[in-house]
Amino acid sequence: MGIEIERKFRVLGEGWRAQAVRSVRIAQGYINDMAALREGRQNASVRVRIAGEQAFLNLKSRELGTTRQEFDYPVPVADAEALLALCVGGRIDKVRHYVEVEGHTFEVDEFRGDNAGLVVAELELESAGQAYPRPEWLGQEVTEELRYYNLALAERPYSRWSAQEQH
Amino acid sequence: MGIEIERKFRVLGEGWRAQAVRSVRIAQGYINDMAALREGRQNASVRVRIAGEQAFLNLKSRELGTTRQEFDYPVPVADAEALLALCVGGRIDKVRHYVEVEGHTFEVDEFRGDNAGLVVAELELESAGQAYPRPEWLGQEVTEELRYYNLALAERPYSRWSAQEQH
Repeated sequence: MGIEIERKFRVLGEGWRAQAVRSVRIAQGYINDMAALREGRQNASVRVRIAGEQAFLNLKSRELGTTRQEFDYPVPVADAEALLALCVGGRIDKVRHYVEVEGHTFEVDEFRGDNAGLVVAELELESAGQAYPRPEWLGQEVTEELRYYNLALAERPYSRWSAQEQH
Repeated sequence: MGIEIERKFRVLGEGWRAQAVRSVRIAQGYINDMAALREGRQNASVRVRIAGEQAFLNLKSRELGTTRQEFDYPVPVADAEALLALCVGGRIDKVRHYVEVEGHTFEVDEFRGDNAGLVVAELELESAGQAYPRPEWLGQEVTEELRYYNLALAERPYSRWSAQEQH
């Protein structure tokens, strides 16, 4: 069994849209003050998550070790949209487009909210050396750049990057 | 139409139990840090509520005025019990017993949690002067004492009262 390699690229222009075969909204955020949770003034996180046609409200206790509890409730997507607007931490809001190019599927994440303007494409490969298509909209590779991680984007969104970081 | 009068009493001993015809668990608390909400580091409250055989998770935005939003989701009572244990504010936990005495119904609230040890009886009357039964378990009247209000009990529970206040 091979190890999956994921490469990440910036995306240039709009040429990829014509090749998208499916698009899914992916959004999440935390209702709770993150500092209150970290500093123990609150015992559970409250996360809102939208994945395509489904949405969930998730509560997770902050105890470490074996007693950690998790509760996950489906909620209407319209409610989740309104709740997302009330979130204060961990905000990620994007549309994931599945874009087919020469037998490969690029996952093109078009960010919204504080990360609006950022579009990245991820491609799974079976080995580091595997050849892959390079459509004209595929920009510079950013696989190694930590600021593109979802966790980093939630804490320090694209809108707060320096002009040098953005380009 | 008369104005309803509610009188509240301390309860002595256990004699009332034999006259209880129905008992309902009533419990609520807030998952969120109350200060974070008050000070605007969080935009919505997250309340857990158990009322008899039903339980709810409630989220309410903190905006004032017309745009206040509220979301209420039924959850399993067992989940709500576990979530209550994670709550940090507004904790009220009691069993309400409906106790029949000579055609009147006393609501006897037997508190749990931080208010354990406190038992109060409420009686609705049609006028301030209306006669009412005085079973041997009915203690001093506390109608006018603010520390017995649910809001006060959530903020400053019975366990933190001075010995003088408790008796």
